[in-house]
Amino acid sequence: MSTLFYEPSTRTRLSFESAMSRLGGTVLSTESAGEYSSAAKGETLEDTVRTVEGYADCIVIRHFQEGSAKRAASVASIPILNAGDGPGQHPTQALLDLYTIQREIGRLESIKVGMIGDLANGRTVRSLCMLLSMYNDIQIYFVAPDVVRMRDDVKNYLTARGVRWTEVSDLREVTADADVLYQTRIQRERFQNPDDYAAARGKYIIDRDLMRILKPTAVVMHPLPRVDEITTDVDSDPRAAYFRQARNGLYVRMALLKLCLADGYQPDIAL
Amino acid sequence: MSTLFYEPSTRTRLSFESAMSRLGGTVLSTESAGEYSSAAKGETLEDTVRTVEGYADCIVIRHFQEGSAKRAASVASIPILNAGDGPGQHPTQALLDLYTIQREIGRLESIKVGMIGDLANGRTVRSLCMLLSMYNDIQIYFVAPDVVRMRDDVKNYLTARGVRWTEVSDLREVTADADVLYQTRIQRERFQNPDDYAAARGKYIIDRDLMRILKPTAVVMHPLPRVDEITTDVDSDPRAAYFRQARNGLYVRMALLKLCLADGYQPDIAL
Amino acid sequence: MSTLFYEPSTRTRLSFESAMSRLGGTVLSTESAGEYSSAAKGETLEDTVRTVEGYADCIVIRHFQEGSAKRAASVASIPILNAGDGPGQHPTQALLDLYTIQREIGRLESIKVGMIGDLANGRTVRSLCMLLSMYNDIQIYFVAPDVVRMRDDVKNYLTARGVRWTEVSDLREVTADADVLYQTRIQRERFQNPDDYAAARGKYIIDRDLMRILKPTAVVMHPLPRVDEITTDVDSDPRAAYFRQARNGLYVRMALLKLCLADGYQPDIAL
Repeated sequence: MSTLFYEPSTRTRLSFESAMSRLGGTVLSTESAGEYSSAAKGETLEDTVRTVEGYADCIVIRHFQEGSAKRAASVASIPILNAGDGPGQHPTQALLDLYTIQREIGRLESIKVGMIGDLANGRTVRSLCMLLSMYNDIQIYFVAPDVVRMRDDVKNYLTARGVRWTEVSDLREVTADADVLYQTRIQRERFQNPDDYAAARGKYIIDRDLMRILKPTAVVMHPLPRVDEITTDVDSDPRAAYFRQARNGLYVRMALLKLCLADGYQPDIAL
Repeated sequence: MSTLFYEPSTRTRLSFESAMSRLGGTVLSTESAGEYSSAAKGETLEDTVRTVEGYADCIVIRHFQEGSAKRAASVASIPILNAGDGPGQHPTQALLDLYTIQREIGRLESIKVGMIGDLANGRTVRSLCMLLSMYNDIQIYFVAPDVVRMRDDVKNYLTARGVRWTEVSDLREVTADADVLYQTRIQRERFQNPDDYAAARGKYIIDRDLMRILKPTAVVMHPLPRVDEITTDVDSDPRAAYFRQARNGLYVRMALLKLCLADGYQPDIAL
Repeated sequence: MSTLFYEPSTRTRLSFESAMSRLGGTVLSTESAGEYSSAAKGETLEDTVRTVEGYADCIVIRHFQEGSAKRAASVASIPILNAGDGPGQHPTQALLDLYTIQREIGRLESIKVGMIGDLANGRTVRSLCMLLSMYNDIQIYFVAPDVVRMRDDVKNYLTARGVRWTEVSDLREVTADADVLYQTRIQRERFQNPDDYAAARGKYIIDRDLMRILKPTAVVMHPLPRVDEITTDVDSDPRAAYFRQARNGLYVRMALLKLCLADGYQPDIAL
């Protein structure tokens, strides 16, 4: 397995590499492909992929451009796993999120999920919404500062599949009703304008006070890294599921790699 | 095997690491030794090598200075593989180039090779010329912008060994006659003067139009990465051998590593 | 084993990774965690560690802040190995230094050690002093430029344990008497003020001339990298032990990893 990472990562790269090691395979690692690979000399992503597929049996790619993984997959003859394509998608994160909800809540149907934070740029919430639409009786609440509200493409996708969603400005109202609070970081690196960042940051914080109105059976999730949108005194609450969620990434990625590299795999099942 | 890379690389590092993994060995990888190793603290290459040889059985080194691999080999008691020493040499690339010509053309004798692009700084063409001189009846055409013509050291080396070479300014003339068109990138990172770079770049492009006059049995090679000196619409032509060439790097490097680490290896056979 | 390196390293990271490979384990490597991990997005070290412990069985950490390894260990449920915490400690280096003294001199008791160079910021000498205090009849000479003299915390630690230490300004005097000369680099990266760096650098150099007054049974050690504080013409002297010392790091780290990962390991034995 070759990891091609053009953006910083800890969880995703290390959990993929750990997954492949535990399956008995080996890893060709690229920690900062943008600076230290041939991309620095002007090579296109397509050329890089057509080269690397000569050395590896699958490629895990994180890239700063939306659609980059799809472009890579269009020229590759081996499986390409999208580990985040700019503000686009993060499908393996969504799979581990789904697995976490199943393990923590015990079901994937009839749940109420509050999505909080940077919903415009947050590729994890975008991917999770799409996956959740495959299950019955889902209610989604979007809680976002104005400048980073969920984009229409996902809203339309949900509506077309009969998923109920509403935009809510009061986090306490959502907290009292939700089975899952899915908090996300306001991503400074996606903002052009520092004023927009300042306006968005710090508006919706999950702290101990808020946890008092969360149902005993509900959980708090976060794709991590967090900055200050969940205060650290929440960490010891048993409903704080985010570190368990990060660990689930290992198991889900092991399963994905096994699936991709199995005999008879159809690479058109895009991941 | 330890890889010490002081310059960006995709193909060379990953193919070496893949080669060692496939041979059953393990890899100590350094993606950006210039910034994140002790070189950043002022350590000499010699000291780094004398340390790393305590941890690995062979070292693959890419460095920005001509002669660096030879300096490393002079202090090391384990095999040093030169993975590119600035504008000097790139011998493992030349070996895979030779292997590719043999596989694609079916012979290494009596061939006509057009070397195109940055011949002054292109270490791959320099190394390939030297290896080709070991075979009979070789004709080399050098096609380069004025500022980056082949240097005298290689010309004299070829003349001394009876290899015919000529400098030609018309790429079409060479294309009609050659068995191998070996295109190279104009390397911006080797130019001090931006005007020289602008003058050199874009002068000799291989495109679909040019491919019409290339012999059906001839091939186009390129050490990659390419920028725009071969247009992408050439990629689907069966005579476009450059991605097959990149893959051959894996096999040739596996063979080299096996050779270097075999019992009875003489480290004075410099690679 | 996961290596999390927030500061440049060659010896420490590669010897740890080589050690784990030789023990049959695999490695998740991070060469420049400060720039390419989630630390770049504002994640705390504690959060990074709580995530990575889900993917690895032990973590080797180098960080620019004193106390960072202890902070990491306070949240982790797996062994954390401190591979250097800013100007704090470098305990695995001290263990390999001790092992080197034992192998080279044949004993750890009744030895005279001259510590030379940047004693204020040099974490290796700080850690070595503390370990040496466990042995009887140790005499330590501190030879440092004024701006980088040994700090009081270590001096008080030694005094409290009955270790004799003196500050000496004449390197020749120490050289004639010592069993071990432990030279260190003046670390430019620890200086705020360039004048202080200029004043400190070059004051105490070990060269061939000085070696003439060193006892035949004594050795010169250095944690490396060196810049010019030991001249290269000393390297061929059999008493120059620093490259053997670097190699010993591999064996000592293999032993440490085996100890940490053995059944019944008590993680409160802080390393």
